[in-house]
Amino acid sequence: MRSEQGDRPARAKRLPRAVRERQILDAATAVFSQRGYHAASMDEVAVVAGISKPMVYAYLGSKEELFAVCIKREAGRLVDAVGAVVDPELAPEERLWRGVLAFFTFVGEYRDSWNVLHRQAGSEGQPFAAEIAEGRRRAIALIGALLAQAAVAEGVPEWFLGETEAMAAALVGAGESLADWWLDHPDESAKAMAARLMNLAWMGFGNLVRGRNWQPPTSAKADAEPA
Amino acid sequence: MRSEQGDRPARAKRLPRAVRERQILDAATAVFSQRGYHAASMDEVAVVAGISKPMVYAYLGSKEELFAVCIKREAGRLVDAVGAVVDPELAPEERLWRGVLAFFTFVGEYRDSWNVLHRQAGSEGQPFAAEIAEGRRRAIALIGALLAQAAVAEGVPEWFLGETEAMAAALVGAGESLADWWLDHPDESAKAMAARLMNLAWMGFGNLVRGRNWQPPTSAKADAEPA
Repeated sequence: MRSEQGDRPARAKRLPRAVRERQILDAATAVFSQRGYHAASMDEVAVVAGISKPMVYAYLGSKEELFAVCIKREAGRLVDAVGAVVDPELAPEERLWRGVLAFFTFVGEYRDSWNVLHRQAGSEGQPFAAEIAEGRRRAIALIGALLAQAAVAEGVPEWFLGETEAMAAALVGAGESLADWWLDHPDESAKAMAARLMNLAWMGFGNLVRGRNWQPPTSAKADAEPA
Repeated sequence: MRSEQGDRPARAKRLPRAVRERQILDAATAVFSQRGYHAASMDEVAVVAGISKPMVYAYLGSKEELFAVCIKREAGRLVDAVGAVVDPELAPEERLWRGVLAFFTFVGEYRDSWNVLHRQAGSEGQPFAAEIAEGRRRAIALIGALLAQAAVAEGVPEWFLGETEAMAAALVGAGESLADWWLDHPDESAKAMAARLMNLAWMGFGNLVRGRNWQPPTSAKADAEPA
């Protein structure tokens, strides 16, 4: 469909291309999140973005191409948000807490982004399912590598190193599922959600049933308090 | 499409209806698992079931109806498999271990069932997404109730009771994600997979990084050994 609009739109206000593209992608993320990929229309994307439909096509191509760019942008945002807080100088517990808190903070602030990544794009039979599955695999490999790095630094036993990728997969799944649960419990804070995942992932039920629950590490506590 | 075949097929071998339906459902589960809902054809279901296509329609209706019956049957099988081992007399740790082991044993033995439930049916935009999401919610509520029951029996602190549903959601997500990871690591046994989930869910990273990993409870060990 891009061929219908070979030239850069001439009637548009002279906004920098990057600004225009951001407008369109913000609109598209909202529409894909609310309607799902199949039901989303380029008409609605154009209306929400406040520009003409031909301009949407001219800037970012067909609905399929637009969706691909959305996924790429939202996945990059999520990885950046978590990556920004994971300081290798921190102890494993604090590093995990910060990463988990950054994840839930992102999901809370960018619901539509999360929705596009997780609900709309995450299944076979849907467009881009393979790309999403691959992105998920990369996220698991990355988190597994962080666990392995922490394990080596802490002098953790050898057997744990063979387990870090599987543990990362379990952790990612637990985070996704809690993010889903959060949709049904919107009054919960990102911090409360992150503490739940720490209770499972750091403490385990074995501690919980004995009444030992997870608390933010003292040195991280100040940073972790909501502003 | 059922109307094309108003009468019971006359040419079929005289097999009991229940046997015939099971043949068709087994074939349909395999085909839906391998092709996905959209690409699956009723021709292939008929070939795999070894009967004529009109008979497939006559017994179980349209592709959509057939898929709905498949999901219902496979979900029931999974719930039965896990429910059969969860003895309320057991201590929470052993109960969790048995349930987790039953889950991975089911996934290992009935890959196609799991695939239909999890990969083919689990997303918005797909048919029956709402039913699957609702089924998942019910599973979480059920596991949450089991956790609460165990917590009360063990005299666990009050705060834990408010957390059991969220913990169940995290546990279910971790199990799903590990089942996915297993697809990429098919040489792993169901028992090894179940032990991984116990390491996360019962021990937590806090124990793991200190070198304390999970071992099957002594009393459950004999039962848990592969036959």
